[in-house]
Amino acid sequence: MKQLIETPFTQRFGIRHPVMLAPMDKISDGRLASEVTRSGGFGMIGAGYGDPDWIEAAFDAAGDLPVGIGLITWCLLEKPKLLRRVLDRKPAALFVSFGDAEPIIEAAKEHGIPTIWQIQRLEQAEQALEAGTDIIVAQGQDGGGHGMDRGLSALLPAVRDLTGPDQIVLAAGGLADGRGLAASLMLGADGVMMGTRFWASHEANGSDIAKARLVNSGGDDTRRSSFFDIARGLDWPGNYSGRVIQNEFSKPWLNEPEAMKAAADDIRQTYEAADSDDFSVRALIAGESLDLVHDIQPAAAIVESTVRDAARLLSNAPSYLLNQDQPT
Amino acid sequence: MKQLIETPFTQRFGIRHPVMLAPMDKISDGRLASEVTRSGGFGMIGAGYGDPDWIEAAFDAAGDLPVGIGLITWCLLEKPKLLRRVLDRKPAALFVSFGDAEPIIEAAKEHGIPTIWQIQRLEQAEQALEAGTDIIVAQGQDGGGHGMDRGLSALLPAVRDLTGPDQIVLAAGGLADGRGLAASLMLGADGVMMGTRFWASHEANGSDIAKARLVNSGGDDTRRSSFFDIARGLDWPGNYSGRVIQNEFSKPWLNEPEAMKAAADDIRQTYEAADSDDFSVRALIAGESLDLVHDIQPAAAIVESTVRDAARLLSNAPSYLLNQDQPT
Repeated sequence: MKQLIETPFTQRFGIRHPVMLAPMDKISDGRLASEVTRSGGFGMIGAGYGDPDWIEAAFDAAGDLPVGIGLITWCLLEKPKLLRRVLDRKPAALFVSFGDAEPIIEAAKEHGIPTIWQIQRLEQAEQALEAGTDIIVAQGQDGGGHGMDRGLSALLPAVRDLTGPDQIVLAAGGLADGRGLAASLMLGADGVMMGTRFWASHEANGSDIAKARLVNSGGDDTRRSSFFDIARGLDWPGNYSGRVIQNEFSKPWLNEPEAMKAAADDIRQTYEAADSDDFSVRALIAGESLDLVHDIQPAAAIVESTVRDAARLLSNAPSYLLNQDQPT
Repeated sequence: MKQLIETPFTQRFGIRHPVMLAPMDKISDGRLASEVTRSGGFGMIGAGYGDPDWIEAAFDAAGDLPVGIGLITWCLLEKPKLLRRVLDRKPAALFVSFGDAEPIIEAAKEHGIPTIWQIQRLEQAEQALEAGTDIIVAQGQDGGGHGMDRGLSALLPAVRDLTGPDQIVLAAGGLADGRGLAASLMLGADGVMMGTRFWASHEANGSDIAKARLVNSGGDDTRRSSFFDIARGLDWPGNYSGRVIQNEFSKPWLNEPEAMKAAADDIRQTYEAADSDDFSVRALIAGESLDLVHDIQPAAAIVESTVRDAARLLSNAPSYLLNQDQPT
């Protein structure tokens, strides 16, 4: 599909559509990332906690198509060798989230790699701006996986007010269609990053059982908590929590955080013993935009419908205005 | 200011601007509500837990200007006499939130009073639709005061998908300017309801000390919790929490909900002993849109700038579209 919408994001990065794939840990593999790039969006490999072999394989699978890569800041800070290996693969951009990424941004700049810093609070946007990050992603709490508790409605325009017009800012969290893209542009973004919608794509790296459960769940079924970090033995810092589809295993614990921590060993054993596709126990990570996801689609169709629907909304936006010249 | 934006909300309720004042408990008194109505918006008295004398005084202060009134559903359900008194005052609309309002909607219909049901989850929107509510307000978690944990980005379009085009739907939570109004229209709303932005108005019923603190605080300073319900001895049901500017008194307790409940008596005593303007102890209720609030303004100026800025954004929205006819 040819380009319909132009923003500073499409201009500066030479892409056709202002839609970035969220680097969902393992889900956004080389195949999905390259397919989003091929479709005119910005494909991102989701390398999460940073497994070097998996990362090499993902880059290899993407082939010649340019894709970026996303990692967890506090993990990558502990792995300087991995950072060098990642930068040597010349990703289209290095995306980091969850922690003070200033040293990583510096290293990427030295290698000439564009950087993306995802923020969850306004004070973090100040850090990202100060570090000279090429793209700031403002992530609302509506999104799947880890994040913090602020929403997009005020955070996104506040980030724009902070940065001024020249900074590339993308919106993320709860966005899954053209309405989300058009609304994000009105709030001051230059484009969107979408995760959950691409998770429910043919190319996403996950089982049919998982994808069917995405289609059959809604935003009301998700909730932020630390339960599945405890269950997976992951020691997340600070006030980060993860949005997942809550299940029979997690629900009884959600309002008892202190008892949950006390029972951590038992919870972990049960979790590890469960089959990887047993989502009555295992975490299925997804955001509130599940309400807008009704089928599994090709990634290309997701990019195209998002842009086409947004273009129609933007084109029709003046129809809300009363024609001042015309007598009624 | 003359009308700039037309939506089904302005058409059906005969107002000039698709901007509703949130019925902030006591803050939205007769003076503020009537001033928003006079400015072309939809003024609402905030009667919260339902003090009959305060309500009568608020309606009297509003005078001949039509204003609505908002109350807490689970409180009003316990007060059938109050409901009748409120309906007898012929409000422009009866707004309810936080609970199953079906019996209240029924009673209001019998009196010919338009109804507004604020929802926080998609499943609640189904209830509100079923009850034949005139306006559904979708409230994101970003807003000040009580609410739940879902954001607007996905909830609002999902509500629109549920209701179809004929239902009046308003957006609330984290919205404070024309960007929020324009974005809400793109997501499928017919207008917005704003609280925090009007709290920081000349006409809002609060002290200069409180208003100065609003101007000097940001969205990062707010957080949802049950702390101030416990401190005020309010027994809120379900999974409701309140977003407030957190302070030195509340912060140490926020991550220890179980210890907080155990210390409830001590917390309440300290709270009650504090001066009403001592916001190092007292709750100052406000939402994340504090990031967008930099001064105290007349309510009329808030309505006007919101609509004017939204109209400009909507008018310019097609500028994002590449001109397909023009060769580059």
